[in-house]
Amino acid sequence: MAGSATAAGSPEQGTPGSMGDVRRANLALVLGRIAKAGAGTHLTRAQIAVSTRLTKASVSSLVLDLIDAGIIREIGLKPQGERGRPGVGLELNPANAVLGMEINVDYISAGLTDLAGNLLLQEVRERDNRGTAPAAVAAALARLAAELRDAARARGIRVLGGGLAVPGLVDPKSGTVIAAPNLGWNNESLDLPALVPNVPLGTTLFNEANAAALAEVRYRPAGDADFLFVSGEVGVGGGLVIGSELFTGPHGHAGELGHVVVQPEGAACSCGGRGCLETVAGQDAIFVAAGVTTNRQQNAQLSAAPSRSESLAQLLAALAAGDADALDAVARAGHYLGVAVASTVRLLNISSVVLGGHFAILGEWITPALSQSLATYAPGIVLPGSISLSAVGQAGAVLGAAGSVVRALVEAPHRLSS
Amino acid sequence: MAGSATAAGSPEQGTPGSMGDVRRANLALVLGRIAKAGAGTHLTRAQIAVSTRLTKASVSSLVLDLIDAGIIREIGLKPQGERGRPGVGLELNPANAVLGMEINVDYISAGLTDLAGNLLLQEVRERDNRGTAPAAVAAALARLAAELRDAARARGIRVLGGGLAVPGLVDPKSGTVIAAPNLGWNNESLDLPALVPNVPLGTTLFNEANAAALAEVRYRPAGDADFLFVSGEVGVGGGLVIGSELFTGPHGHAGELGHVVVQPEGAACSCGGRGCLETVAGQDAIFVAAGVTTNRQQNAQLSAAPSRSESLAQLLAALAAGDADALDAVARAGHYLGVAVASTVRLLNISSVVLGGHFAILGEWITPALSQSLATYAPGIVLPGSISLSAVGQAGAVLGAAGSVVRALVEAPHRLSS
Repeated sequence: MAGSATAAGSPEQGTPGSMGDVRRANLALVLGRIAKAGAGTHLTRAQIAVSTRLTKASVSSLVLDLIDAGIIREIGLKPQGERGRPGVGLELNPANAVLGMEINVDYISAGLTDLAGNLLLQEVRERDNRGTAPAAVAAALARLAAELRDAARARGIRVLGGGLAVPGLVDPKSGTVIAAPNLGWNNESLDLPALVPNVPLGTTLFNEANAAALAEVRYRPAGDADFLFVSGEVGVGGGLVIGSELFTGPHGHAGELGHVVVQPEGAACSCGGRGCLETVAGQDAIFVAAGVTTNRQQNAQLSAAPSRSESLAQLLAALAAGDADALDAVARAGHYLGVAVASTVRLLNISSVVLGGHFAILGEWITPALSQSLATYAPGIVLPGSISLSAVGQAGAVLGAAGSVVRALVEAPHRLSS
Repeated sequence: MAGSATAAGSPEQGTPGSMGDVRRANLALVLGRIAKAGAGTHLTRAQIAVSTRLTKASVSSLVLDLIDAGIIREIGLKPQGERGRPGVGLELNPANAVLGMEINVDYISAGLTDLAGNLLLQEVRERDNRGTAPAAVAAALARLAAELRDAARARGIRVLGGGLAVPGLVDPKSGTVIAAPNLGWNNESLDLPALVPNVPLGTTLFNEANAAALAEVRYRPAGDADFLFVSGEVGVGGGLVIGSELFTGPHGHAGELGHVVVQPEGAACSCGGRGCLETVAGQDAIFVAAGVTTNRQQNAQLSAAPSRSESLAQLLAALAAGDADALDAVARAGHYLGVAVASTVRLLNISSVVLGGHFAILGEWITPALSQSLATYAPGIVLPGSISLSAVGQAGAVLGAAGSVVRALVEAPHRLSS
């Protein structure tokens, strides 16, 4: 969309001081061009004027605002002999960063990216958050975020804002986690400003699977503009991408793949339902069926049970060794994942699937069962070539949450420059 | 959306002859105001100028075009003594009509509506179209359409265009029925111009459930802007309405509720899949389970089997008499409908359901099972008060197909006026 946008209003409306809305839209337009061009393209004011149809004078004025706000910077003339256009180029200021954060059932994570989306630093801390008071989890995450922010400061990088992904339904406006059954959280209001204090763009709340899906849009080498992203953690989540945009439905909560019913006579689910995909394809369900020991329903601080990543390593070893229970458990998860995906592709008219989380880690074993299941339940719709593994891996939710902060800035740079 | 639209471009761009695109948009804007006002509101040129921010001269010129094209007409000054604004009013010309048509498994239907959506005439003809050559079915429908058109002509009404709804995936651009498994049609190209010859707006192809969902949007007394419409015919279809607009997904085929998997170990489906909702909640599935005799897999011309409406009457009688098989069959259909709806509301974030077709006819018996199932599989999401029966009834697909033709005209009146 941004690629085809041209200046809002007539060029004359872009002069400083006239019509705030138009100027704000044009600031976003100019920043969007610079962000899209990426590092090393040496985009000049003149080129921006041509592609946006703004006057050179308007572009110069807008660029000055963005430079003053520290969002972009000038880069010098190319050295003699190198190819490339002459003139002073513009690029995103690498001295800015945003903080992506994730709270999941058994870990917290924070990562720092520059405005171009490059991951500068990431920290993952395993801890059992299940049933822990949200304030205590948030306090631990705030400490982790502060560490990363200190590290950034030491490099001369300022943090502009934060994004927090959680495995549940969220209300970004009020900063409320409406329901995160696997955490045992219901209507928990998080103190988002305290997580990353005193940042100009504030901190925003996201659903984990949606954040990870957005990261796929940004980081996938190529591929469909329409796909279902499957998030595999303790819970199973989904992110629906249509036309390279997240589809979140009328109230922001679409894509709850983990609660598609795949076994009407199945087990009770943490959501209060029955036979949801999560009950057969969530991490705990797979570990139990595979006979892998887990920290399920124990507090990690009190038990010697293995951490979740240790359980996953155990499972992978068992699969590699050809353990029948492990193979059956994963094939069963893949089969029922296929049932849920088949229903999803019929309802949403999407025909590509991207597997994340443990579905990606177990890809070698889970994909054949998934393909076979899709051939049974949605024949001819999701072809084996349309199933792919996450390009981003475990950092997806953190990268997506950080990326959304950047996206919000690019769409409204006046939040920093005015 | 139309309610908040204002004139495209500056008022001056609306003068005749300048900038075709802007004039076309402004024609649509003016017609939209008149269509929205409805009959008897006595909307004047001056009022339209105020609400659209077009100049009075522009409105007069645009109105003249619409009158010349016969789309609207003037209505006189209000008689002395009546309340109301003075001046010549404008309204949709009641001498225009559109033809809605439907091909389903066991009937064809055609209906005539005026541009305000009032049904003037409708004819339904039962016939077994299953496995019949599409050309033969289309020829029968063309004869029915010609009868209605003759009746319209006798009343001084001209038919502007037609809309045809079929129970399957369609490509409106090429006029192709991509797949209608219950008709046994695959990639059948229909000769749409021959269905309703020589009409200025041509004839357009729709999916049956989507057309019926649009009719609900238009004719429901009030209600949610977001709902799932469930179409119950031989097949089961779905129409997704979000923000009072049809959501059809990236390639136009979203909402295939009948092929949501509700019984992974269930029966083979006509779509090639297995355990789809249609296999337990389609009309044939219910009739068989209820022990009601049907014309299933027989040619109506060769057999004395009851017609589908006779089978439905038999079923209703059995239910009223408390027949255990009939009650079980309908309760089972309601239960699995709940499984499919539960998955749909999780994926689409919709919380209202409107039942059409046989689900509406069987509403008294099917709704309790559906409510109970939703309480099990999507607790707290679809409340019993959010389940309603179709406001339109059996004419839904015909009304929706006709209404879409009107909508297309209102959005692009230059197709008639230029």
